Amino acid sequence: MDLATFLGIVAGTALYIWAIGQGGSLLNFWNLPSLAITLGGTLAATLINYPLSRLVGMVGVAKNAFFHRPVDPNETIATLTEFAEKARREGLLALEESVDQLEDDFLRKGLQLVVDGTDPELVRSILETELAFLEERHRAGAAIFDTMGMLAPAFGLIGTLIGLVNMLKNANDPEKIGPGMAVALLTTFYGAMLANFLFIPIAGKLRVRSAEEILNREVMIEGILSIQAGDNPRIVAEKLRSFLAPSQRATRRRDEEGEEA
Amino acid sequence: MDLATFLGIVAGTALYIWAIGQGGSLLNFWNLPSLAITLGGTLAATLINYPLSRLVGMVGVAKNAFFHRPVDPNETIATLTEFAEKARREGLLALEESVDQLEDDFLRKGLQLVVDGTDPELVRSILETELAFLEERHRAGAAIFDTMGMLAPAFGLIGTLIGLVNMLKNANDPEKIGPGMAVALLTTFYGAMLANFLFIPIAGKLRVRSAEEILNREVMIEGILSIQAGDNPRIVAEKLRSFLAPSQRATRRRDEEGEEA
Amino acid sequence: MDLATFLGIVAGTALYIWAIGQGGSLLNFWNLPSLAITLGGTLAATLINYPLSRLVGMVGVAKNAFFHRPVDPNETIATLTEFAEKARREGLLALEESVDQLEDDFLRKGLQLVVDGTDPELVRSILETELAFLEERHRAGAAIFDTMGMLAPAFGLIGTLIGLVNMLKNANDPEKIGPGMAVALLTTFYGAMLANFLFIPIAGKLRVRSAEEILNREVMIEGILSIQAGDNPRIVAEKLRSFLAPSQRATRRRDEEGEEA
Amino acid sequence: MDLATFLGIVAGTALYIWAIGQGGSLLNFWNLPSLAITLGGTLAATLINYPLSRLVGMVGVAKNAFFHRPVDPNETIATLTEFAEKARREGLLALEESVDQLEDDFLRKGLQLVVDGTDPELVRSILETELAFLEERHRAGAAIFDTMGMLAPAFGLIGTLIGLVNMLKNANDPEKIGPGMAVALLTTFYGAMLANFLFIPIAGKLRVRSAEEILNREVMIEGILSIQAGDNPRIVAEKLRSFLAPSQRATRRRDEEGEEA
Amino acid sequence: MDLATFLGIVAGTALYIWAIGQGGSLLNFWNLPSLAITLGGTLAATLINYPLSRLVGMVGVAKNAFFHRPVDPNETIATLTEFAEKARREGLLALEESVDQLEDDFLRKGLQLVVDGTDPELVRSILETELAFLEERHRAGAAIFDTMGMLAPAFGLIGTLIGLVNMLKNANDPEKIGPGMAVALLTTFYGAMLANFLFIPIAGKLRVRSAEEILNREVMIEGILSIQAGDNPRIVAEKLRSFLAPSQRATRRRDEEGEEA
Repeated sequence: MDLATFLGIVAGTALYIWAIGQGGSLLNFWNLPSLAITLGGTLAATLINYPLSRLVGMVGVAKNAFFHRPVDPNETIATLTEFAEKARREGLLALEESVDQLEDDFLRKGLQLVVDGTDPELVRSILETELAFLEERHRAGAAIFDTMGMLAPAFGLIGTLIGLVNMLKNANDPEKIGPGMAVALLTTFYGAMLANFLFIPIAGKLRVRSAEEILNREVMIEGILSIQAGDNPRIVAEKLRSFLAPSQRATRRRDEEGEEA
Repeated sequence: MDLATFLGIVAGTALYIWAIGQGGSLLNFWNLPSLAITLGGTLAATLINYPLSRLVGMVGVAKNAFFHRPVDPNETIATLTEFAEKARREGLLALEESVDQLEDDFLRKGLQLVVDGTDPELVRSILETELAFLEERHRAGAAIFDTMGMLAPAFGLIGTLIGLVNMLKNANDPEKIGPGMAVALLTTFYGAMLANFLFIPIAGKLRVRSAEEILNREVMIEGILSIQAGDNPRIVAEKLRSFLAPSQRATRRRDEEGEEA
Repeated sequence: MDLATFLGIVAGTALYIWAIGQGGSLLNFWNLPSLAITLGGTLAATLINYPLSRLVGMVGVAKNAFFHRPVDPNETIATLTEFAEKARREGLLALEESVDQLEDDFLRKGLQLVVDGTDPELVRSILETELAFLEERHRAGAAIFDTMGMLAPAFGLIGTLIGLVNMLKNANDPEKIGPGMAVALLTTFYGAMLANFLFIPIAGKLRVRSAEEILNREVMIEGILSIQAGDNPRIVAEKLRSFLAPSQRATRRRDEEGEEA
Repeated sequence: MDLATFLGIVAGTALYIWAIGQGGSLLNFWNLPSLAITLGGTLAATLINYPLSRLVGMVGVAKNAFFHRPVDPNETIATLTEFAEKARREGLLALEESVDQLEDDFLRKGLQLVVDGTDPELVRSILETELAFLEERHRAGAAIFDTMGMLAPAFGLIGTLIGLVNMLKNANDPEKIGPGMAVALLTTFYGAMLANFLFIPIAGKLRVRSAEEILNREVMIEGILSIQAGDNPRIVAEKLRSFLAPSQRATRRRDEEGEEA
Repeated sequence: MDLATFLGIVAGTALYIWAIGQGGSLLNFWNLPSLAITLGGTLAATLINYPLSRLVGMVGVAKNAFFHRPVDPNETIATLTEFAEKARREGLLALEESVDQLEDDFLRKGLQLVVDGTDPELVRSILETELAFLEERHRAGAAIFDTMGMLAPAFGLIGTLIGLVNMLKNANDPEKIGPGMAVALLTTFYGAMLANFLFIPIAGKLRVRSAEEILNREVMIEGILSIQAGDNPRIVAEKLRSFLAPSQRATRRRDEEGEEA
């Protein structure tokens, strides 16, 4: 579960409920047609912009911003070092059984190719192609939220224009201008909230998560190729740790003492 | 037919008709001179921006956003695998007859070059040049809609300025200020709707469709060159599937059991 | 003459004269000081931004958006194919006389280098350097109009601020507020029109024309080098046509029947 | 300590306190709910956008904009020249002791690799990988402030919309409209100040500091490799100085006369 | 002296003085606290954004936009051709004396390296490194003005918000609203003028000047290496002229007749 996403949404919502309550009633800010204009218009334009299949896939992508299990590259490195040791001691073929039990599809596929005796250049090329397409899919997923973050304020403004035109056309009673304007402004409010509180930050979180996952898979590729090359397990571990920030490598000593591996 | 485009336009239009009806009359939102100022100004500026020939070609491009027959790369892969098998069994020349019956111009041209015994490097170079120019034409087509999506709000604003100046110059009667302002705001409304509900999402859909078509042709190029190299049909199929997302490869088993191929 | 540019300007101007006339008098929209503030400010800032020499050269560049003789790459291909045939029959030296009669400087210079027996690598390098600098000059020319398209709305806003400040300072008479505001808004109107109806679309047209001319010269470079390499004239024509979109190649059959060449 | 950052914040704050005092009371500009809406909304959206771990790390990054000890590449060059001389006179192994006393982790790690007799290609590859990830971390740190600089004005606008809606809904008393509007505008004021006076300039300063540090480490890499290659100390110094701007090299003569080295 | 910069500033200032005088008094547009808020805020934020040393260096950079002595690459070419002739006749060592008298540091350093018999690859590498860092410094100098051009309108808006809040809080007297609003708008006016009339165009001019100087130095590098290679002086001149636009080469014939060289 992505703690920060939940924390941000819960704290932000609470804050805004409190802030609105300070100066008026929450009911002032609830208007179904206004929400329909803003959110509905955004969704309709998004449908025109993207094929149905991709929008359906987006639901799965969005979950990543909320229910992402953080990837720990140190675990990946520990696993790969273990495999490197076994390969050194017992040969590449001895890895077969353990490979089958790996959870991660990417790692299992890569090590399976190594066990099958595939040419190293081909292993790298297959894994890098897979990684490039994964990156592209992640990018496309975040782009949908970026698009929605751009459309929501626009449809908020459109809603306000609709409200203003209706209000001005019937403006015989100056008493009603104030409340009419208040309702008209609600769509702009909804559009700005949807964009800045949901769509744009979710797109940002997806990009951060994508970068983490891609780094983790780059570590895997290097590790798999090192194992195939028969490198010394210590050198494998050292090489892979150079992919991490010093702060991420904090657990290094523990690894070396075998507490985790 | 692109379902999402139609769905988006129909649902969005219905939504806006309903939403406008909530607070006033649809007639308030119909004003021919306002539409002429916004749409006419956008089209005039687009004429200055692009040569006539390209604008005429744009009509064909725009149809892609509405009547696009989705390309299934799995079909392309099945066809190419079939050709690979035949080539292996009966030689490259045996493909000639089947090649003539191919619907896709690009695939037919590429395989014809192979049957004619063209040098592999030249085949790749010719097909990649063709693909690069196709990509450029797609990009240019989407760019026209991007330009219109940028111009429409600007001419909407210009229309509102015209309305405001006219209203303010003759503003002896405060009673008329409200309705006059309502009409002036209509062009801003039209400009925002044209941009965010049509031009920008259509440009987006064209880019998505272009990416799909280009991916499909990259699959073709790889397949054609594999056939020419005399690769094993199973390896051809495996290689080409690595271009697809795992979800797109769902039909894999079916293919292998020959249900589709 | 660039038909679309003229059509756009004439149709757009007529449309706006009509639209303004619908709601008021054209005279409301004519105010010399307002125009001086907007256009003069834009030009003064452009002078600060660019050296005089480049602004003088801009006049010649701007003409390209209006009086551009469309380049037909098919003609270029026909000419080059003709030269290829002659070179094959009578040798490279036999081209000398016809080369002198070529109108296009770039083509003549390139073929002259070939006739002079210059090394192919050097021919390519000289022509590509020339092309790179041409592209850079085109880009710089369009950039001036982009800059003006960005400055004009800013100086329109500045003019409106000047008008508002003057109006508000002297606002003893509420009757004058309306007309005063109308005049103040005129500079924003002028700025938006200059940017969206002139500067931005002209920059766009210049970029399109530049791309066409550069493509045409790329065709020339390939053709010149093919002639020098002694390629078969049919192959030269085939190679050069791959630079064109299928629609541009429509005249292909005609060429082949020799109706144009 | 980064003098300019403190100077800018102190002088800017003093200036704004004075300027506000000119036309009214400072108390007019203090409103806790308004600040909570703007800053709280920005922080909540930032939490959604970034993982907790990165936001915690940001505090350390932000300190760089305030408490940065300027890096002097001339010192680095002097140190490296000294090492080059010693290595020439007494051999690479003689460096071991002095290397242990180096404060800079990067320099120590690099020279240690040289002393250990690591292959030059590997030394370069390890140090450049480390540098690339450092650059990426710096970039990511500045990006958080960029994001906050984009979100703050948006939440300022949202706050103003909340204030306006509340005010308009209850607008029975025209006397209260003025003060209500004043409070509503405060969030826009806070958002603009936070973005333009803090977040955006801090992001800028972090980028400048990052560029300085990276340049300094590039000097280190070149120097370390020159030492390993056994280059003449004078040539090492000359090579490294070519990384600096002429103005930065002002202390050159001093170095040569040994005043600093 | 850069004529266009002065012309633009003088003509623009005169125009705005005239335009403001048309509708009111110049005194309406002078307000020291407003200027302090806008310019002071911009400078304070710039201090936070950049280190002091770079801001001090900016003064020297800014002078380039005003007192730039235009570089004539034809002169550079003439000088280099002369050197090439001398080197051919009397050998590279004969250049030593004339090299010492060269005014341009870059040219002198490069030719000195040639006279010293430095390896051609090293000469190119040293000069290109120097050029890359020069380009980077130019870019950074223009970036400061870009930053100020972005900050000035923001602080103009902040000033207007301060004025509005103060005005609305004390708005008992409707008579004072007009003039109060006028003063509040002045900061937006100052911000827009500073950005669009000074900072942005000066950044633009600096970029143009930088490009000219870099082109001139690229000509120098090519010329120096040609001299070292012992190329024929005529070919040196021909090669270097291909860097110039045809219009810049206008003085070619004169050069050849030796009128200048």
